[in-house]
Amino acid sequence: MITSREQALALDRDDELAHLRDRFDLPEGVLYLDGNSLGALPKATAARLEDVVKREWRQGLTGSWNEAGWVHLPARIGDKIGALVGAYPGELVVADSTSVNVYKALSAALTLVLPERPERRRILSERHNFPTDLYIAESLARQHGCQLVLAETPDQIPLLLAQGGVAVMMLTHVNYRTGRMHDMATLNAQARQAGVLTLWDLAHSAGAVPIDLNRDGADFAVGCGYKYLNGGPGAPAFVWAHSSHAYRCTQPLSGWFGHARPFTFTPSYEPASGSKRFLCGTPAVLAMAALECGVDTVSAAGGMAVLRRKSLALTGLFIELVDTLCQDHRLALVTPRDEALRGSQVCLARQDGAYSIMQALIAHGVVGDFRAPDILRFGFTPLYTRYVDVWDAVQALAGVLDSGEWRQARFERQGAVT
Amino acid sequence: MITSREQALALDRDDELAHLRDRFDLPEGVLYLDGNSLGALPKATAARLEDVVKREWRQGLTGSWNEAGWVHLPARIGDKIGALVGAYPGELVVADSTSVNVYKALSAALTLVLPERPERRRILSERHNFPTDLYIAESLARQHGCQLVLAETPDQIPLLLAQGGVAVMMLTHVNYRTGRMHDMATLNAQARQAGVLTLWDLAHSAGAVPIDLNRDGADFAVGCGYKYLNGGPGAPAFVWAHSSHAYRCTQPLSGWFGHARPFTFTPSYEPASGSKRFLCGTPAVLAMAALECGVDTVSAAGGMAVLRRKSLALTGLFIELVDTLCQDHRLALVTPRDEALRGSQVCLARQDGAYSIMQALIAHGVVGDFRAPDILRFGFTPLYTRYVDVWDAVQALAGVLDSGEWRQARFERQGAVT
Repeated sequence: MITSREQALALDRDDELAHLRDRFDLPEGVLYLDGNSLGALPKATAARLEDVVKREWRQGLTGSWNEAGWVHLPARIGDKIGALVGAYPGELVVADSTSVNVYKALSAALTLVLPERPERRRILSERHNFPTDLYIAESLARQHGCQLVLAETPDQIPLLLAQGGVAVMMLTHVNYRTGRMHDMATLNAQARQAGVLTLWDLAHSAGAVPIDLNRDGADFAVGCGYKYLNGGPGAPAFVWAHSSHAYRCTQPLSGWFGHARPFTFTPSYEPASGSKRFLCGTPAVLAMAALECGVDTVSAAGGMAVLRRKSLALTGLFIELVDTLCQDHRLALVTPRDEALRGSQVCLARQDGAYSIMQALIAHGVVGDFRAPDILRFGFTPLYTRYVDVWDAVQALAGVLDSGEWRQARFERQGAVT
Repeated sequence: MITSREQALALDRDDELAHLRDRFDLPEGVLYLDGNSLGALPKATAARLEDVVKREWRQGLTGSWNEAGWVHLPARIGDKIGALVGAYPGELVVADSTSVNVYKALSAALTLVLPERPERRRILSERHNFPTDLYIAESLARQHGCQLVLAETPDQIPLLLAQGGVAVMMLTHVNYRTGRMHDMATLNAQARQAGVLTLWDLAHSAGAVPIDLNRDGADFAVGCGYKYLNGGPGAPAFVWAHSSHAYRCTQPLSGWFGHARPFTFTPSYEPASGSKRFLCGTPAVLAMAALECGVDTVSAAGGMAVLRRKSLALTGLFIELVDTLCQDHRLALVTPRDEALRGSQVCLARQDGAYSIMQALIAHGVVGDFRAPDILRFGFTPLYTRYVDVWDAVQALAGVLDSGEWRQARFERQGAVT
């Protein structure tokens, strides 16, 4: 472990990925450890948006659907994301929001299973999965006469799979509150053994940790564009289906962009070939242009393996420094110490004051976030987070805790928290 | 009717709405009559997007969800659109695409009717409705064990309503291919008489013609942000429910932004109060910022009545000039001459060559569009279309037809057409 700021600066000097930070337009006076909620702004984005607006839209107008390739954005950006998560070209498309894509993919999976195995009436997930996934699953469970079964802890999942009756296992690969990462290959193998289809939410994984959907035997996946993919607030999401499903599955949001021939304007629906059937409405061109700039920052790293090495070094250093510098403050490490189980964030629980502690830290310019009821969450984006940032963040955290300043009234909770 | 270009220019000089054209950044060398497909670029949009990107996103980062009001965008912009279509504040929200919103609203309507009136198993629409609406209705008909019944012509609709068994009538207010406008108040009254809920697609109406959803007794409505609302390619869409439904209906895309308390992260879904339950995923902030600029251009007109007067004057003049100048060319007027039945576009059918004629016209800088199999479509946006544009467009059309130049090989159809 390092014991001085100078050592942290030395690690940054030796970092082969340090140059990637230059691709971002980072805010002044802020040490940003919340890229797992909203990725920072890539430098390319503003100019690209201006070009889309002032040239493609203003001058090209409707002609830009073909001439500027707007119709191809969902597949073109999808292929770039696909390369980061182990999808083959053409298998992954960008569309809608993560929530909407969970609906499509979970519907598709259920519609594959239920007609052939009507006795399988369970959708298996986790109580601590991100709520929107559970809300959508609740809705589809009602629609299909299924039951949503929730594991209380990750180790219950294999037991619940083995109990039988499960149609689809829907998990978020890296948990948003704990930073714990599932072993996707093992769980997929167990699911396959039990005849269960899998749906993975990669919201906190895409661009953050290595994923290989095809190698690891996943059936369906969705993910988010505005976290580690740096696509901007509310960026479009993505959806993937294994090629063994993509050409035969159906999904209910059968909008015209998922039609085999959208521009012949026929009154009956016929799904497009492969994953394009997961498209629905007209592509959100401006939002997709921004997303593409974000994805390009990740692609520029030259592979997820190098990003993963730095991510683990950053989160490992953060954990070590918190162990040392904050040991008197009843912080519980929620994120696994085991690297194989750790995403690219570190979460600390504290029974009292977690919200106020985060607010006090933000007042010092160190931005993480709070997740109810008791979690301090810190995200580490290896593209732009430095070792010295980790050092400075833990110093600031220790300072806030040692001084007790977080107990001031101005840091108390009020109103909405995102 | 006017008989010279000078007279057209004089009409523009007297036009009380002429100043609104200054709100647009229009392309050079193009006479744009395709705002019914993609609205032109408002001057405010580029700067607003730059501000959202460089200040709200770059500097505010996650804090902007509250501090820049990102969480309120769906309702804030929704209220502005609501004022254009006769919705009360809080009743209309911006979200997702039109296709996705058709799914939500039609699901909500069916879920209100079917449990109480299980014998009503018909969804009534038109064969010539925009295909995406039909594709979504097909999907929901299958899901709910209903039948999609399609009127071949508008005058069959009252007959089909009277035949009984209809749960929901889903119509597009102004037809995309013909420019024909339904009498919403009368059809809603007939539907109500028959115990049928109504869902209106306002894609070619919002910002184009006066709408009063509450006065005219509609139940549900959706609409598009990128046509007459000038929100940019693939802009977010909107959805509205009458207050008698909004607090008790359910829709299956139950994402976290439609939850009563999204940021308490509870595992069970509880719909938000009123129309906010139609929200699903995280709002598309960049796209919504552009949409707001577009909606503001319409709001600046000071009411839909003045826009409607100019719209009818433009389409009426276009029809008169085509009658006079193109009479030898077998063009059939598809759009009604009756102003009460006309939207803000004019469509001309021609059995042969329609595609090539439009391409030749575009080569002269007059941009309308082609809709299969035989339609030349011209949209008139009173915010930025001038009387002299109408004059020049018909002169160009007559020139293309008189010269026969559209028969050149370079104007032949090839590949995808949007």
